[in-house]
Amino acid sequence: MPDLVVVGSVALDSVRTPFGKVTEALGGSATYFSYAASFFAPVHVVAAVGEDFPREHLDLLHQRGVDIDALEVLPGKKTFRWTGEYGFDLAEAKTLDTQLNAFAEFKPRLQARHRGAPFLFLANIDPDLQREVRRQMTTPLLTALDTMNFWIEGKRESLLRVLREVDVVIINDTEARMLAREANLIKAARSIIELGPRVVVIKRGEYGSVMVSNGEFFFTPAYPLESVFDPTGAGDTFAGGFMGYLAQRGLTDRTAVRRAMVFGAVMASFAVEDFSLERLKRLATGEIEERYAAFERMVTFEH
Amino acid sequence: MPDLVVVGSVALDSVRTPFGKVTEALGGSATYFSYAASFFAPVHVVAAVGEDFPREHLDLLHQRGVDIDALEVLPGKKTFRWTGEYGFDLAEAKTLDTQLNAFAEFKPRLQARHRGAPFLFLANIDPDLQREVRRQMTTPLLTALDTMNFWIEGKRESLLRVLREVDVVIINDTEARMLAREANLIKAARSIIELGPRVVVIKRGEYGSVMVSNGEFFFTPAYPLESVFDPTGAGDTFAGGFMGYLAQRGLTDRTAVRRAMVFGAVMASFAVEDFSLERLKRLATGEIEERYAAFERMVTFEH
Repeated sequence: MPDLVVVGSVALDSVRTPFGKVTEALGGSATYFSYAASFFAPVHVVAAVGEDFPREHLDLLHQRGVDIDALEVLPGKKTFRWTGEYGFDLAEAKTLDTQLNAFAEFKPRLQARHRGAPFLFLANIDPDLQREVRRQMTTPLLTALDTMNFWIEGKRESLLRVLREVDVVIINDTEARMLAREANLIKAARSIIELGPRVVVIKRGEYGSVMVSNGEFFFTPAYPLESVFDPTGAGDTFAGGFMGYLAQRGLTDRTAVRRAMVFGAVMASFAVEDFSLERLKRLATGEIEERYAAFERMVTFEH
Repeated sequence: MPDLVVVGSVALDSVRTPFGKVTEALGGSATYFSYAASFFAPVHVVAAVGEDFPREHLDLLHQRGVDIDALEVLPGKKTFRWTGEYGFDLAEAKTLDTQLNAFAEFKPRLQARHRGAPFLFLANIDPDLQREVRRQMTTPLLTALDTMNFWIEGKRESLLRVLREVDVVIINDTEARMLAREANLIKAARSIIELGPRVVVIKRGEYGSVMVSNGEFFFTPAYPLESVFDPTGAGDTFAGGFMGYLAQRGLTDRTAVRRAMVFGAVMASFAVEDFSLERLKRLATGEIEERYAAFERMVTFEH
């Protein structure tokens, strides 16, 4: 089965939502991504944590079959910590505190055995680092990238440079508008295609997601949930389901990418049902298939 | 072909959007609804205008085959006028002026030949009037209702009463939350079902729409438009496509209702491409079929 490499953050998150709170729970883009992707394909994490990173978290990833050989523990450093809260509209987190710690020194270096992996996900890190990682790879079949407002505004030129070297960009609607400098999301999606990627996936939270590729649009709703507990990590979990499915199939064609969108939405729908990775830890493979089938029933009107 | 009756407003709208403006253009819920529905089935308008209502508008409806026999011209009265504007996010109109005029005296009386019609749409009017109209009908196969925040807040008991006597409610997401007194849209949809209708259709503007029926969800996106010119009438045009399709087929089953949602979205997507009914006036039947087929391509991932 083709392999999947992710470069991103592994963190300790303190999160408060209207429904509860957690302190220093397992988080980070590479964490959510790899945990979700592990349900589909072998996944390798390239990241850095501090000496204080709890052993149990490493065990958790390892037990899921996530390869953490390239998860460096930096001596004398602390782990990246993020503190945030959400209001009743769970659409956007308010960041209360960010301590980059080990993550500030993160210089991703791929091991020789990772460089030939066919699937690569560049989670939301400095676009210069994303580009450096992409360049360390031989010839991946498909590279996807996430980014955020901080880089779109602060490192636009670097970001535009790496965008020319990736196949897929996976961002949210606010980021898409900001990146394209265009209020209309449909125009924004099309103009991001002009920047390099052949596929643009735009996440719209509770409204689902939209993909543009080859001049075609594809829409998937969000799974209808009666209670969303904590949206932290939903985007990375989406990307994990998306890339995991493609890596599992070893495909990047039109149908595969559409199904990957749905698996992304499926995985994200589980992630938000509890804090941290709690719901994903209780997840059975059968539940993924069930929810995928539910998505089909929720959008079908001709067949 | 089964017939469709609509009770609602026929108005003169003055609208300003960031892309232009119109003064005293043809508008009103029954107008948009009937014009859209006329592409599918024979439709009869029950409404009232003033003596000043331009003859050309009556001709326009008549030429489309809309039956305007029950469109009363009230002597000595002026036509309902609405003035509103939209900002760059076209999500919500700001009402600048409302002159009810003839509409204030509107006491819908169905003609004998309308009372046996199998399909009835109660556009957004006083819920007591909606109920009175529903009671004038013999045994419609399907009755759908629209309403708005004004009635939800101001005439809640009346609204709850008429809701027990309709099959379908078609409202927007804000109205759904307000009606159900529930922030989570999925919970809101389910609890509106408890109020009587067996089908709840919730419009979410640029995010498409969602239907709940028999415990099942169905989602349709909005057609991806690079420029939305004027959203006035989009909801009523949606309802016109929805009800028009059902009336054309004479069906109310699961598949028919799903396809009706898509035809609703198709018709609404045309309405917003220009002011007033301008785009609908230029619409060819073939375009409806094309856009319907496009919707299928935009959501299909398994077939």
